[in-house]
Amino acid sequence: MPAIDRMRRVCITGGAGFLGSNLAERLSAAGVEVVIVDRPRGRRKRASDSRRSRHIRRVEGDVLDPAVLEHAIDGCDWIFHLQANADVRTGLEHPRRDLERSTLATANVLEAMRARGVKRVMFASSAAVYGEPKVVPTPEDAPFPLQTSLYGASKLAGEGLLAAYANGCGFTALICRFVSILGEGYSHGHLLDFYCALTQDPTRLHVLGDGRQRKSYVYVQDAIAAILTAIERHHREPGAHIYNVGTDETSTVADSARLVAAHLSLSPKIEYGGGRRGWQGDNPLLQLDTTRIRALGWQPRLTIREAIVRTLEWLDANEHIWWEHSNRGAIHGRPFDANPAAAKARA
Amino acid sequence: MPAIDRMRRVCITGGAGFLGSNLAERLSAAGVEVVIVDRPRGRRKRASDSRRSRHIRRVEGDVLDPAVLEHAIDGCDWIFHLQANADVRTGLEHPRRDLERSTLATANVLEAMRARGVKRVMFASSAAVYGEPKVVPTPEDAPFPLQTSLYGASKLAGEGLLAAYANGCGFTALICRFVSILGEGYSHGHLLDFYCALTQDPTRLHVLGDGRQRKSYVYVQDAIAAILTAIERHHREPGAHIYNVGTDETSTVADSARLVAAHLSLSPKIEYGGGRRGWQGDNPLLQLDTTRIRALGWQPRLTIREAIVRTLEWLDANEHIWWEHSNRGAIHGRPFDANPAAAKARA
Repeated sequence: MPAIDRMRRVCITGGAGFLGSNLAERLSAAGVEVVIVDRPRGRRKRASDSRRSRHIRRVEGDVLDPAVLEHAIDGCDWIFHLQANADVRTGLEHPRRDLERSTLATANVLEAMRARGVKRVMFASSAAVYGEPKVVPTPEDAPFPLQTSLYGASKLAGEGLLAAYANGCGFTALICRFVSILGEGYSHGHLLDFYCALTQDPTRLHVLGDGRQRKSYVYVQDAIAAILTAIERHHREPGAHIYNVGTDETSTVADSARLVAAHLSLSPKIEYGGGRRGWQGDNPLLQLDTTRIRALGWQPRLTIREAIVRTLEWLDANEHIWWEHSNRGAIHGRPFDANPAAAKARA
Repeated sequence: MPAIDRMRRVCITGGAGFLGSNLAERLSAAGVEVVIVDRPRGRRKRASDSRRSRHIRRVEGDVLDPAVLEHAIDGCDWIFHLQANADVRTGLEHPRRDLERSTLATANVLEAMRARGVKRVMFASSAAVYGEPKVVPTPEDAPFPLQTSLYGASKLAGEGLLAAYANGCGFTALICRFVSILGEGYSHGHLLDFYCALTQDPTRLHVLGDGRQRKSYVYVQDAIAAILTAIERHHREPGAHIYNVGTDETSTVADSARLVAAHLSLSPKIEYGGGRRGWQGDNPLLQLDTTRIRALGWQPRLTIREAIVRTLEWLDANEHIWWEHSNRGAIHGRPFDANPAAAKARA
């Protein structure tokens, strides 16, 4: 019987986020009871709201509160610990975010598991843990890396905690090191930045760095398939199991800028900020060696280009995402003042 | 001018501990003003008390209190961040200790540095970050390790934070991965365990594991010389610089047990608990490749055997260390009821 069919109940931290809401929907559709932990929210509409199924139960509270966590994970077969601070670029501006929302949250999840006798955990780590690796494509056993961002440091700290608990408490710990994920539900990252910026000013697009940063991406459903493939393999196997997850191709940031502009039927002047990196801690060349997960039979179904198009189509249909993103001042600190239709009309 | 002569003031977290008190004395003797941060203490006598010089100033408070840290490091040329939870073996019994006393403390030190414009930090990491490495002797760029203890995980988390701040804030971050340190001031570890156990029962000695755990050790003054050698090289060089520090030999736990017994002129029956590891997270084979630090001209002056003898002589002369250790119930949970002289007399 496939592992997914043996799951009765799982908990997803960050279950209202991008990867989390897609995973919740996938598991729920397979009949798994899904508990998501989510902070109390205000008026903000979540990507997942429209797709909530009857198998998904929401526990309102903070993963930094042990009582909330213990309540949420009680009786679960697996914990999918996806919650983290997603603002990679601004780590040094808000250093407590990565420390608390990622490192401390992970420690709390593991203690809650021990308290409730839950023994299996999957952790969404990141290619960021490799810093700027000397070996590209980078395998899981690359030389001991040097961290370049607080985001990467918090993911590394989380991995270390999982492995230590796996060793000491007999947990099965699955660690997936993802490249950037694209697809339906996308709510952070350069595609959204470009999309929003062009809705504000369709005549020009400012790109951080020289645009030649070359990276791998993966489609969200392919990422979920990778998780389920690795679970299938290790469901009954205590210890820490680590997998890179990404496509074998790369795409440049300039490629993305051009694709977003073309998607919006715009011809902006694209200006590059210069420098090999978009920000302190950005990695100008990111591609993972995915031999290990491919050996389990996984392979991505969508190319990077196809995943980008899916993401942009989803943004077209979900105005609240870019409206909210623009109003957070994430784009050049300017208020939102347009939508793609208006942008096209003005252009 | 040697780097040590350019230091006017430094701060040592954990400055009342084993490595810290020795380093404080060394720097103070060279005319450096040393500020140590130390938690308020009760009646316990500290190893360093007898050796406090006029150049050493003590700031009472907790490194988890940013105000204490900022006060302590103000105007310092270097921070030596040595403070950590030293109870390696009991990590999973007290998981918050490694998280708070190590990981959070390190984050706080780095933020305090940023707040006060201090740009140089040395961090006492550990061979524990390598887990159970596949390559022995283990070089600094060994394959990406898997953590086996919360102690190692907290040191890894600390290293990641240092590297990320070095990259993002232009800090000079020196990371020394030490093997176990021996010498004057020793207050934790298997030699003290054996010494105390034999003062309680001179007829038998229980050893965790099969006694064949083979490890490297380094004498405390050699460890300090390594720190100063690396500082000499990197004083003006921002970025993260990582060095293994250890002797090129190894010694077994059984060797240590026999040396302690011989030192106390005892012939106990030595009983082994069995298993390759002394505890969950113990590493049965630990030896570091120290090519990198040796290339800077450093080499240890004492052999492991010489360092063990120095340690035991120091314990002979510092009854309060083993008195306190025994009364903490650290040895088999039995109360202290003897001293080496009495033990010898009874034997």
